[in-house]
Amino acid sequence: MDIKTYMQDRGRAARAASRAVARADTNAKNRALNVMAAAIQRDADKLLAANAEDMAAARAAGLDAALLDRLALNAKSIAGMAEGLLQIAALPDPVGEITDLKYRPSGIQVGKMRVPLGVIGIIYEARPNVTADAAGLCLKSGNAAILRGGSEAIRSNQAIAACVREGLAAAGLPETALQVIATTDRAAVGELITMQGYVDVIVPRGGKGLIERVMNDARIPVIKHLHGVCHVYIDDRADVDKAVRIADNAKTSRYGTCNTMETLLLANNIAPAVLPRIADIYAAKGVEMRGCDAARQIVAMNAATDVDWVTEYLAPIISIRVVDGMDAAIEHINTYGSQHTDAIVTEDYARARRFLREVDSSSVMVNASTRFADGFEYGLGAEIGISTDKIHARGPVGLEGLTSQKWVVLGDGHVRG
Amino acid sequence: MDIKTYMQDRGRAARAASRAVARADTNAKNRALNVMAAAIQRDADKLLAANAEDMAAARAAGLDAALLDRLALNAKSIAGMAEGLLQIAALPDPVGEITDLKYRPSGIQVGKMRVPLGVIGIIYEARPNVTADAAGLCLKSGNAAILRGGSEAIRSNQAIAACVREGLAAAGLPETALQVIATTDRAAVGELITMQGYVDVIVPRGGKGLIERVMNDARIPVIKHLHGVCHVYIDDRADVDKAVRIADNAKTSRYGTCNTMETLLLANNIAPAVLPRIADIYAAKGVEMRGCDAARQIVAMNAATDVDWVTEYLAPIISIRVVDGMDAAIEHINTYGSQHTDAIVTEDYARARRFLREVDSSSVMVNASTRFADGFEYGLGAEIGISTDKIHARGPVGLEGLTSQKWVVLGDGHVRG
Repeated sequence: MDIKTYMQDRGRAARAASRAVARADTNAKNRALNVMAAAIQRDADKLLAANAEDMAAARAAGLDAALLDRLALNAKSIAGMAEGLLQIAALPDPVGEITDLKYRPSGIQVGKMRVPLGVIGIIYEARPNVTADAAGLCLKSGNAAILRGGSEAIRSNQAIAACVREGLAAAGLPETALQVIATTDRAAVGELITMQGYVDVIVPRGGKGLIERVMNDARIPVIKHLHGVCHVYIDDRADVDKAVRIADNAKTSRYGTCNTMETLLLANNIAPAVLPRIADIYAAKGVEMRGCDAARQIVAMNAATDVDWVTEYLAPIISIRVVDGMDAAIEHINTYGSQHTDAIVTEDYARARRFLREVDSSSVMVNASTRFADGFEYGLGAEIGISTDKIHARGPVGLEGLTSQKWVVLGDGHVRG
Repeated sequence: MDIKTYMQDRGRAARAASRAVARADTNAKNRALNVMAAAIQRDADKLLAANAEDMAAARAAGLDAALLDRLALNAKSIAGMAEGLLQIAALPDPVGEITDLKYRPSGIQVGKMRVPLGVIGIIYEARPNVTADAAGLCLKSGNAAILRGGSEAIRSNQAIAACVREGLAAAGLPETALQVIATTDRAAVGELITMQGYVDVIVPRGGKGLIERVMNDARIPVIKHLHGVCHVYIDDRADVDKAVRIADNAKTSRYGTCNTMETLLLANNIAPAVLPRIADIYAAKGVEMRGCDAARQIVAMNAATDVDWVTEYLAPIISIRVVDGMDAAIEHINTYGSQHTDAIVTEDYARARRFLREVDSSSVMVNASTRFADGFEYGLGAEIGISTDKIHARGPVGLEGLTSQKWVVLGDGHVRG
């Protein structure tokens, strides 16, 4: 069968199944999630065996260590997958929630009802746990999904898919509601992102190359996470201890996450007092510092170039710039940032208020570490990703981000005058 | 200057201006809107003169009567434009609203702040009043806008643009915040919908040809209104008087609007009682009926074909189908409809509840005319259009639909453990 026909068949089946999932009551969805979790735990050995085959093939193909690390499953990560599904089952069902139902002068009542998007296409790389997470989130939010994982994880993903189907069947839901693409043909991605009639939204999860390909070629709306060039600005009215603590945590608690600070901005009046303390911490932790001229006059470090201001290092490297004050900091963030997460450290009420309003990022923070930008920390219960888009959903996307709202109108024979 | 350079310059200026508009306080935006309204009223003669030139050119080019009708301005429509801007000024400012601010176990407070989208590209045809309406809505929602009207309305639109600029200047806002494209070169549209760095969302307003071109070629998210194939389903537990009243109003109160019913569905148990009464009304008003076999056995009418079920007539024509009951009606609507607006007429509580949940349209109604699907009727105060998309905004889009929400995090030196 050619790949176009194969994908069209998946799309048609997903569209048909999406109606059943949208109608499914909370108990049915939770039962499916609980059975999936139990099946994954029960089949741990099967999953590990499938994963071992993927790992052997990946090693033979010479894939790099970072990718092998993301691909690997173990008893703990399998237990984590099952636990994640149980947590999704425990979250409130967003579907059908009616809000703002109000009487209008015409006599009708008008409100909004939260509804699934329909069919969600998920495109991801390496990590097999995304198969379970994304399937669970799509199901709980009332959506059907077509999941297309990386070819290097095909055996692991198919083993997880069997558990997912078992859960759906146990709840009387169509197994085609959550389909994991069984081909490694790269053309499947091209089909998935152009099946306008069958897929309502695409969620790509992976490196910049994947996201940019999807952005260029998709004919369907995309909820994407491009990259995180996050800033902490230390205002001259900052509490120095808080500033040091936040600058440390935002950079060094984890280097590879998108909410890690990449650029530290300091007001020139406070830089001499605070930069040496922060630099000592970075030096002790092996973080390479790249600074502007003014920063380098306070602490010896490498010189930053313009490329540094737009770079997401995902590594123990930080760029440091001394600025004239908050307006210059906001200008820097809005010019070089990626509208992901940016924080100010200040004790000044008016500046905190202005920073919150004027920084155009998906998360804006006062006196808190950028590392808090996360669905669990925000109370979403789980996240399918972090959006750097401006329409639909910004920042961490949980169940609600996989839904939209339709209008409901209640009347009693009302007609328009 | 070539068209690409011209549009890039507009885009760059809009992006720069968007920051000032996003920051602008409510008073400044309202002052701009009030001055625009006054200028439009004061310049009514200039607008009429410019419009007369557009009309003469359009007649000379042989444009059809419907288009000439949409293009024409008169004293009343100019007063309506000014009044519309005053109404937008009177609406609450959506920008900066913070909701759901809650303490999390980590000690941070997390909430959402409503923010502008940035730069909105509006592409429209014929009606010059869209220039004022769209400019006003974009400004009040804190967005910059690039407006590209039809070439047939270029003189009228430029005359309105002068009033818009006067309002911006009076409020100390950059005149480039709301730019009306001054070229009739069709390539301008192609540029506008691909300037990813400068434009955040495209709102096309016009016929199916325009929308489909934008959908195919845009590299920017689109909030689109494709078409409205709206249904009224008369359940066998309907109150017959309400059914007749709603079927009449939904079809005949206006024929050319997108929320007009195009297909009437009737449960087979009630069709003999209700269809003759409705058919009498349609016949008296000159509405052509096209029915399925069962409908034609009750009332003589033309035969409907499959094409009728997917057709937005925008004319005094209606298709009529007798169905087995509510499930068949929902199946028909989800199969042939355009997910715009669909209504059930029933006195049955359980069926009303199921219809609301299971019909996947942007507006779903019980015992009310589809003609209520409208920003003013819903209390939005104004609308930029009606979205038939599933992400971001569904149904009537007002000020809120031109915004999104970012996350705000308030801490006191908090770091992530």
